[in-house]
Amino acid sequence: MKIPRSKEDDYSQEIIAQRHGWLETFTGQHFPYLQGRPYEPGSVLGTCENYVGTVGVPVGLAGPLAIHGSRAQGEFVVPMATTEGALVASFSRGMSIITESGGCHVLSPGNVLPGETGQPYRVLGDALTKVSAVVLRDAAEAGRFDGWLREHLPQIVAAANATSRFAKLLEVSPLFHGDLVGLAFTYSTDQAMGLNMATKANEAACRYILAHSGGLAIDYFNTLGGDKRFVPDQAKGRYVSASVRIPAQLLQQRLRTTAHRMRRFLGACNILLAQRGATAPNIHIANALTAMFIACGQDPAFVTVSFKNASTTFEPQSNGDLLASVTLPNLLLGTVGGGVKLPGQQECLRMLGCEGDVIKLAEIIAAVALAGEVSVAGAVTAGEFTHAHTVLGRGLHGETAERKA
Amino acid sequence: MKIPRSKEDDYSQEIIAQRHGWLETFTGQHFPYLQGRPYEPGSVLGTCENYVGTVGVPVGLAGPLAIHGSRAQGEFVVPMATTEGALVASFSRGMSIITESGGCHVLSPGNVLPGETGQPYRVLGDALTKVSAVVLRDAAEAGRFDGWLREHLPQIVAAANATSRFAKLLEVSPLFHGDLVGLAFTYSTDQAMGLNMATKANEAACRYILAHSGGLAIDYFNTLGGDKRFVPDQAKGRYVSASVRIPAQLLQQRLRTTAHRMRRFLGACNILLAQRGATAPNIHIANALTAMFIACGQDPAFVTVSFKNASTTFEPQSNGDLLASVTLPNLLLGTVGGGVKLPGQQECLRMLGCEGDVIKLAEIIAAVALAGEVSVAGAVTAGEFTHAHTVLGRGLHGETAERKA
Amino acid sequence: MKIPRSKEDDYSQEIIAQRHGWLETFTGQHFPYLQGRPYEPGSVLGTCENYVGTVGVPVGLAGPLAIHGSRAQGEFVVPMATTEGALVASFSRGMSIITESGGCHVLSPGNVLPGETGQPYRVLGDALTKVSAVVLRDAAEAGRFDGWLREHLPQIVAAANATSRFAKLLEVSPLFHGDLVGLAFTYSTDQAMGLNMATKANEAACRYILAHSGGLAIDYFNTLGGDKRFVPDQAKGRYVSASVRIPAQLLQQRLRTTAHRMRRFLGACNILLAQRGATAPNIHIANALTAMFIACGQDPAFVTVSFKNASTTFEPQSNGDLLASVTLPNLLLGTVGGGVKLPGQQECLRMLGCEGDVIKLAEIIAAVALAGEVSVAGAVTAGEFTHAHTVLGRGLHGETAERKA
Amino acid sequence: MKIPRSKEDDYSQEIIAQRHGWLETFTGQHFPYLQGRPYEPGSVLGTCENYVGTVGVPVGLAGPLAIHGSRAQGEFVVPMATTEGALVASFSRGMSIITESGGCHVLSPGNVLPGETGQPYRVLGDALTKVSAVVLRDAAEAGRFDGWLREHLPQIVAAANATSRFAKLLEVSPLFHGDLVGLAFTYSTDQAMGLNMATKANEAACRYILAHSGGLAIDYFNTLGGDKRFVPDQAKGRYVSASVRIPAQLLQQRLRTTAHRMRRFLGACNILLAQRGATAPNIHIANALTAMFIACGQDPAFVTVSFKNASTTFEPQSNGDLLASVTLPNLLLGTVGGGVKLPGQQECLRMLGCEGDVIKLAEIIAAVALAGEVSVAGAVTAGEFTHAHTVLGRGLHGETAERKA
Repeated sequence: MKIPRSKEDDYSQEIIAQRHGWLETFTGQHFPYLQGRPYEPGSVLGTCENYVGTVGVPVGLAGPLAIHGSRAQGEFVVPMATTEGALVASFSRGMSIITESGGCHVLSPGNVLPGETGQPYRVLGDALTKVSAVVLRDAAEAGRFDGWLREHLPQIVAAANATSRFAKLLEVSPLFHGDLVGLAFTYSTDQAMGLNMATKANEAACRYILAHSGGLAIDYFNTLGGDKRFVPDQAKGRYVSASVRIPAQLLQQRLRTTAHRMRRFLGACNILLAQRGATAPNIHIANALTAMFIACGQDPAFVTVSFKNASTTFEPQSNGDLLASVTLPNLLLGTVGGGVKLPGQQECLRMLGCEGDVIKLAEIIAAVALAGEVSVAGAVTAGEFTHAHTVLGRGLHGETAERKA
Repeated sequence: MKIPRSKEDDYSQEIIAQRHGWLETFTGQHFPYLQGRPYEPGSVLGTCENYVGTVGVPVGLAGPLAIHGSRAQGEFVVPMATTEGALVASFSRGMSIITESGGCHVLSPGNVLPGETGQPYRVLGDALTKVSAVVLRDAAEAGRFDGWLREHLPQIVAAANATSRFAKLLEVSPLFHGDLVGLAFTYSTDQAMGLNMATKANEAACRYILAHSGGLAIDYFNTLGGDKRFVPDQAKGRYVSASVRIPAQLLQQRLRTTAHRMRRFLGACNILLAQRGATAPNIHIANALTAMFIACGQDPAFVTVSFKNASTTFEPQSNGDLLASVTLPNLLLGTVGGGVKLPGQQECLRMLGCEGDVIKLAEIIAAVALAGEVSVAGAVTAGEFTHAHTVLGRGLHGETAERKA
Repeated sequence: MKIPRSKEDDYSQEIIAQRHGWLETFTGQHFPYLQGRPYEPGSVLGTCENYVGTVGVPVGLAGPLAIHGSRAQGEFVVPMATTEGALVASFSRGMSIITESGGCHVLSPGNVLPGETGQPYRVLGDALTKVSAVVLRDAAEAGRFDGWLREHLPQIVAAANATSRFAKLLEVSPLFHGDLVGLAFTYSTDQAMGLNMATKANEAACRYILAHSGGLAIDYFNTLGGDKRFVPDQAKGRYVSASVRIPAQLLQQRLRTTAHRMRRFLGACNILLAQRGATAPNIHIANALTAMFIACGQDPAFVTVSFKNASTTFEPQSNGDLLASVTLPNLLLGTVGGGVKLPGQQECLRMLGCEGDVIKLAEIIAAVALAGEVSVAGAVTAGEFTHAHTVLGRGLHGETAERKA
Repeated sequence: MKIPRSKEDDYSQEIIAQRHGWLETFTGQHFPYLQGRPYEPGSVLGTCENYVGTVGVPVGLAGPLAIHGSRAQGEFVVPMATTEGALVASFSRGMSIITESGGCHVLSPGNVLPGETGQPYRVLGDALTKVSAVVLRDAAEAGRFDGWLREHLPQIVAAANATSRFAKLLEVSPLFHGDLVGLAFTYSTDQAMGLNMATKANEAACRYILAHSGGLAIDYFNTLGGDKRFVPDQAKGRYVSASVRIPAQLLQQRLRTTAHRMRRFLGACNILLAQRGATAPNIHIANALTAMFIACGQDPAFVTVSFKNASTTFEPQSNGDLLASVTLPNLLLGTVGGGVKLPGQQECLRMLGCEGDVIKLAEIIAAVALAGEVSVAGAVTAGEFTHAHTVLGRGLHGETAERKA
């Protein structure tokens, strides 16, 4: 079940063919576009104007990776598109440790709407918020506009929902300031990442407001430019959380480190960089997202938003095992639209069995991110662990003595 | 000088060939890999393990874009790699407006070191900071360690500088906390993005400290995991700032908007999203960076850091012209290493004349980002401008009347 | 209606008595504690242990300030407690400009709950979120715990609501990570700032969970320490937004500046500081909050949270008027509990007519903040305006010529 | 050495007098203003306009607190001004634990300037940065202005330094954007907090530039309004870091908790709130700063900046001891100017022996903050610890079993 590698030349046609053979056995599928079949120009339609060809981003296989999710269940071979040497090898190592540990658990809580259940439990784990702005005739009428809005909400919702079979308006919240009223519209977007459908739906809602507010609203800006900035809304894409318990022995044998030491390393990162204003306690989740987004036809410009509040912990258990966890509250993904339909990218989605299953894709990406965090923390701490043994003498006290033991 | 397009079918072999012909005339170069020549597997060596092929990211041409920079001077045709429809067309429109306005000015201030000039002017516009952590034997000895550090700085600098012909240590700053001491090392990195050389140099510095501090330091973490998180250091890559003055008439004719309205739009974005914690006042600079990074073999995972403090303004001038400006304080780029050597990516770098000239590349990217901001703001404000005319009646006062005029 | 001042000695007993006379006429009230009556030690009970006396924070009068709010209506004399020279004078100037402009409008949108209206309009403008954490027996059971939570929400809500007549649980949202589940509880808190009642209610909810989840939850942390950190939740206290339209003539006469120039100044602040990671576009709202919080017995440690996303704009109107606006999305205030009952602080609350009316207090504070922003921006821009005239020669183009005119 | 308390009535005149007696023994000083002597109106001069009296903020004694700092050495009784019940008691408990643990170590690294030492070690731990903006005649001349600046730096430095005996310009860094150039001036400010002297010095520098740049600069904004916003500069006030090692036995006896459990609690805070964008990993350092700032005549509006990047860790040692640490990178303090000269506030400063010793004050405040973090984390974790014992049955595995042991 191991991905074939060659120690002499891992880039020969032969070993590449061997990997494809293995992959076909594993997945029961063929991947001709990854192997070099050129994209028909027509297949690019809708993704790029003034088209002159493609740049190839190398794809390596990582895994297998065992996942227990709500949609992603079983072992996966993961295609990662990257130009950063060592990245695929490192993630693959992390995946095999997770798999040997029995796999990781992934949670994707979805949506719960107070307006539907009548209970105050509110979860927006599968939704997209897009903010538009309405310009008022007079700042002094903001309160009156707020009142108008409350009364005409059913019509506004109807206008937004009429624009698409897929986008469904879940929530509207206002942001007041002077003669501006921001309206944060939150949608469920089915299989799409959903920004385009949200744009259309917001447009319809804004037009309704402009046409029917009796002159209170005199203008609007449909796109507030916050789509590719980070705004700490809770609802930006899919919310997924993954964790794995790695036995102490595996840490020792495979990573030559300890749970304690991995925790110390991540703690040092967080506390020292916090002095300089760092947020989002993770090591390199941006790498996982970027490689997966490019391989699977997602928009890599959304890594900026998707990685922002991503967080990682390494929690030692009393028997020396490690509980490693990552949470990605804002994964902006889709399995329709954008680059998804490009033939090579389709193959990558298909390799993961994610055609038409965006939650499954989100769960796999969370597991991949977890693998990357474990692997890099292992590498950093193993390195120094060795040095500590080599360089340091006797007579250390406290924690260090423990590490030496 | 316009990029050839076909209204019937812009993805036919014919029109693509026509564009390549035009491009060869414009640049005096050929671009066979963009046109479909497959990458030799050996050319991928060092960028991707377990290699099984490539996914193609479509490349479109945008421009020409006129730039007056310190390194980038003249008109450029810009390759952008993206799967997001309309993106290339939108950037290209922005570029042609800049070019018709006489081009944009780009500033890249480089480095000025107080330690070298003896003057307190300090500029780190072409440098990279990487933080490592040293673990002390005893938190109570942090002050003593600080003293030791000050005394042994020449040796530490020498150890770091010895690791590479290119990385040169410019500054070291400490971060104290308990038994941890963070050391922020800032390097100039020549043509490289530089993270790998910084890692090596930090490692050497940390080893020197561990070996010679007489037991004060007992361990270290070389990589603090902040490389792909955003830490608001001033020194992360290349600092570039671009601006253009666009005549009112051009705004009207080409974008059907006004400087005032563009400013209002961006102001609405910034003020409303600020209520929800947004930072970095820009519209979609992440798109510019992502498309350029993928085309030119940069690491797109660094868009996360590079876009973070990017900022945009639209400032109306008294005669109705627009001064549009962007600043990118943290562009993480290199023209050696990573994906730069892949054959298609090399072609894109070569199309821009940036082989071995990372500052030129930074300046071009700043100009591209500027074009994207102008174009999208034009689109958003033109749309509503029309609506305002269509939907709104009479009797508007204040600003709106002005817009109607 | 002007606060009495003396040009010779504004700190003599005589002028102070004169101001008190004026104040008594204006408000119909006496303020003996402000005038020096010592606090009875018993009155301090519950606010400070190991009590040894008080430090006096000087209180100055600012205003009158005309406000059109939902609760605050009319003209107010505002007590500000500060030790920063010029602060009261500056705010008072801003207030008189607002009053001369016809007063400011203040909006406080309150709460709208989707679960109550059945409509997706969601506003939390008068609420408090406090996050507790539950520790799970096993990270792999997070999904099962989520399910249990959904089923038992009515009981959890009941447990929380039973702890107080005032705190009412409006929303619960989960945050998953490994073996931790954060629970963000959002309450309405009536007249109280509400943190203590939220703590009690969270405790009851957590205890219920611990006792009834059948071992899924094995522990909890009631207080997550985020109360005095900034977490960009929407629901932290009272949301208020104030704005005023200041005639161009008043700007010229009273502030010797223009709307254009005030906008330019604030724009320069925002764009340049954004490069260094600044958030929250405002000038010095922290000053308004601090002086009002201390005078009115609020907890000044909550200025940290209350000022964080505060935002200010100066928007020139087509006739040269200025629309100045501030929004304070997170004002943590109460008119019961804490320092409110101290006798001098009670007098300040009473001076504003805010006993038992926390929304009125919030609206007044928003108006005060607005006054401070207008005044300081006027001061900064008037200074340079003069310099521009003095220092600069002829032949300026563009904006500057306009300023000179 | 314990502060006298009465179980019957801790607010009687008698027990208050007893505490003053004790305090006079401890410090050898009298504190008549704290005891109720009214402030002479003249003493308020320069701190508050339209003065009508004072509000009293209750002061409680906490400590004694043992500190090993560079300036603060010995045991201190700490005056804290607050209206939040339980706060003084909680801090005092934390202080006594620190004292019983042998005291805390505090580090204040001060300044090291590369321009002075010729070495690249750069530390700005006792400095203040204030940013002004210059408006250029033409955005296209930004590069030329940069060149002019480099040439004329000696004169600019001289102009700034000539404004005060105390402010000394240490560094100037530019921020470019369009026709704006931000200039971040960093000063040492001796005993003052320094904002006023920085304002004067920046003004002089800006005037010099305006007068001598040959028309390149046509205007400036001296105050960029970032003084009371948080801008993650490294140089904002005094940088101090405090830590203490608390024996396991003391944690058990005095706090009924463990080092492990305290770490877990703080970790839960940080990781869960990070999902919602929280920064600055600390529990309630804002409380320490606010109470100390008000007592000691500091500007409490600067707590907003001073607390922002404050960070706390609890690190278990291998023998069960706790290493607790706090770092305050941005303490904005002064022992001259502002409210320092008010008579009650002077007494508080004098109680700490900090007249004319701002670094000593900074070190004490760091130690106070540390005490608060330890005490609250102890309270939260002891509560739940008890519950865990009470509520939970048998059969717990992993960490929890360890906690039960």
